[in-house]
Amino acid sequence: MSATASPSAAIIATYRFPRGIDAARQAEIIAIGQTLGSADAQFAGREQALAACRGRVLEVRDGEDGAQAQVAFPVENTEGDIGTLLTMVFGKYSLAGPARLIDLVLPPDFGTRPRFGIKGLRARLRVPARPLLMAIFKPALGLTAADHATLLRSVADTELDLIKDDEILGNLAQAPTLERLRACRPVIEAIRDRRGRDFLYAVNVTGRADVLLERARTLVAHGANALLLNVLVYGYSMLEALAADPEIDVPIIAHPALAGALALAPDHGIDYQLVLGRLMRRAGADVVLHPARFGSLPFTAADEARIIGALRDADGAWPAVFPGPSAGIKPAIVPALLADYGRDLVINAGSAIFDAGRPPGVAVGAFLEAMAIRP
Amino acid sequence: MSATASPSAAIIATYRFPRGIDAARQAEIIAIGQTLGSADAQFAGREQALAACRGRVLEVRDGEDGAQAQVAFPVENTEGDIGTLLTMVFGKYSLAGPARLIDLVLPPDFGTRPRFGIKGLRARLRVPARPLLMAIFKPALGLTAADHATLLRSVADTELDLIKDDEILGNLAQAPTLERLRACRPVIEAIRDRRGRDFLYAVNVTGRADVLLERARTLVAHGANALLLNVLVYGYSMLEALAADPEIDVPIIAHPALAGALALAPDHGIDYQLVLGRLMRRAGADVVLHPARFGSLPFTAADEARIIGALRDADGAWPAVFPGPSAGIKPAIVPALLADYGRDLVINAGSAIFDAGRPPGVAVGAFLEAMAIRP
Repeated sequence: MSATASPSAAIIATYRFPRGIDAARQAEIIAIGQTLGSADAQFAGREQALAACRGRVLEVRDGEDGAQAQVAFPVENTEGDIGTLLTMVFGKYSLAGPARLIDLVLPPDFGTRPRFGIKGLRARLRVPARPLLMAIFKPALGLTAADHATLLRSVADTELDLIKDDEILGNLAQAPTLERLRACRPVIEAIRDRRGRDFLYAVNVTGRADVLLERARTLVAHGANALLLNVLVYGYSMLEALAADPEIDVPIIAHPALAGALALAPDHGIDYQLVLGRLMRRAGADVVLHPARFGSLPFTAADEARIIGALRDADGAWPAVFPGPSAGIKPAIVPALLADYGRDLVINAGSAIFDAGRPPGVAVGAFLEAMAIRP
Repeated sequence: MSATASPSAAIIATYRFPRGIDAARQAEIIAIGQTLGSADAQFAGREQALAACRGRVLEVRDGEDGAQAQVAFPVENTEGDIGTLLTMVFGKYSLAGPARLIDLVLPPDFGTRPRFGIKGLRARLRVPARPLLMAIFKPALGLTAADHATLLRSVADTELDLIKDDEILGNLAQAPTLERLRACRPVIEAIRDRRGRDFLYAVNVTGRADVLLERARTLVAHGANALLLNVLVYGYSMLEALAADPEIDVPIIAHPALAGALALAPDHGIDYQLVLGRLMRRAGADVVLHPARFGSLPFTAADEARIIGALRDADGAWPAVFPGPSAGIKPAIVPALLADYGRDLVINAGSAIFDAGRPPGVAVGAFLEAMAIRP
């Protein structure tokens, strides 16, 4: 590796190619095509400037499920954000045939830091050790703002830590976002006053990019103490903007909507551990929701473990952030989750709290009990 | 269909499922799961409010490459934008197993209108009938701002209509975006003055969402007369914001970077005709770049035709926008493109102009000649 692509300043991307693809050739196409674009004869005499931008193939090897290639890119080709990163490592090349981006090694300071992470969120909620518990308002649509407050009151006597909107609930006429917040705030404050620690409501923030940014600021100005963002719908660049905005000093919960369109195909797209793991963490999410293998969405133990690993494991000095196993989570599967992944989790349940055939407060109690059972 | 989902107010999504999947069951899961989320027993007495939000399965049928299902969604579940649309029709469901979103029928006024479209851009450039010709600065990286001006001067004597940055060139130290614009502006003005019609430079606009929006406004304030956006990287919501911003009154060129990660897998993700076609048009793009089947990226004639159709064909009263066949485009393939698709195209060439072993001005002449040959 040259001085311009030293281990500390390089971005190393790993690609997997299905059998039958000449991985060595594709890796060279990526190294040049995703940096210089073209080896330009006209620019003789500029070799040094061009060499400093060029990608380098580090390794090509055969694996069980196809060949893998590692390509190093100078970090100077990016703006230190996920947008220019993704454009460089997989932008145009994503159109070039079957290939999957499966890993990324980033310089230690690359990205937008999460404002809270696991440490900050635990301190804020005064929950030092057990998993956090998050509820989801259900049904997702069809409720008024007052209905949201009613649902919230049904769990107000519990030790629930957070609640969130369903991700499909935008700023709709029936229950505009700001009205939902306004209706719920007195309940949130009553919960806080009763138990002496915060309760967070992650309001779903949506809209055209300019509208979304302004709406997020307005919601926080009106007392929103957490935000939910469909990151794959609105872009990592929007998550970065929210995480960096001095007016938006609240935890950000990343929802995985649309992640499957990028990550679920076996030989194409981008691995879940990046889409819902490393990229979310480096873009500033404090909690990342993701399917769990015992939930209602088919999900492999390997994907689950890699996402959770990417969110929490050593990644330079970058703050670890909360994985949030979601979708069909019931009290009965909590012990298995804790046995595998410990207690730095946000357990996220919707129907199992608000559509469980028993009072929501009782359902919350069942989750907290399940957490207390040492696996 | 009920009154709440009449043909004019419904969004109709078509999904394709691989053989072996129970499409009828999946369609029901989508109709409920992507709207109410849960059929909530608690909300007895609210049947009417819930029914108004619910999706409806319209049709399930077997096709050659798997079963297809159509589901109708009330437009009132969305904010009339692509963000809430995608979250509703494919957000969480994208994680649920092999399924591909292959078509969307949208209400006639759904979306953010392109400011120019084909008509507006032809009027602006005073090119009433022939295809437009766009060049791409090459090499993509490693040039200074002054180098960009030098490259631009090499084609200043031609009838080239537009030039654009490479999509991987962000706001980098070696050639900051605003400096590239400043260096090129005198050349752009000289071209305009010489020939009495505009020449457009689509500057690549990048960054964290708040930075990108501000940068776009600054660039336009400093004379940028077109913008390039990596829409799949920064989100349709960002394209919508640029297209709707009163300060950003310039054509917007949509680049397809990352589109393959969403669209290339056969049984997953979202069809190219949506990703690069209908959704781009309904989000406000004036020109949409896409691979062409005779170019350097493997691309099927069917995908090419469907993208071009979605951008130009009848879609309510929505403005038709320019398809921009790209990647490895050479003069020799222009007649075939024109024979298949007529003249409402932006022919987009990088290496074939700036790395063609002949002076760039001569290469531009070869493209314009190839356009004049009646196919």
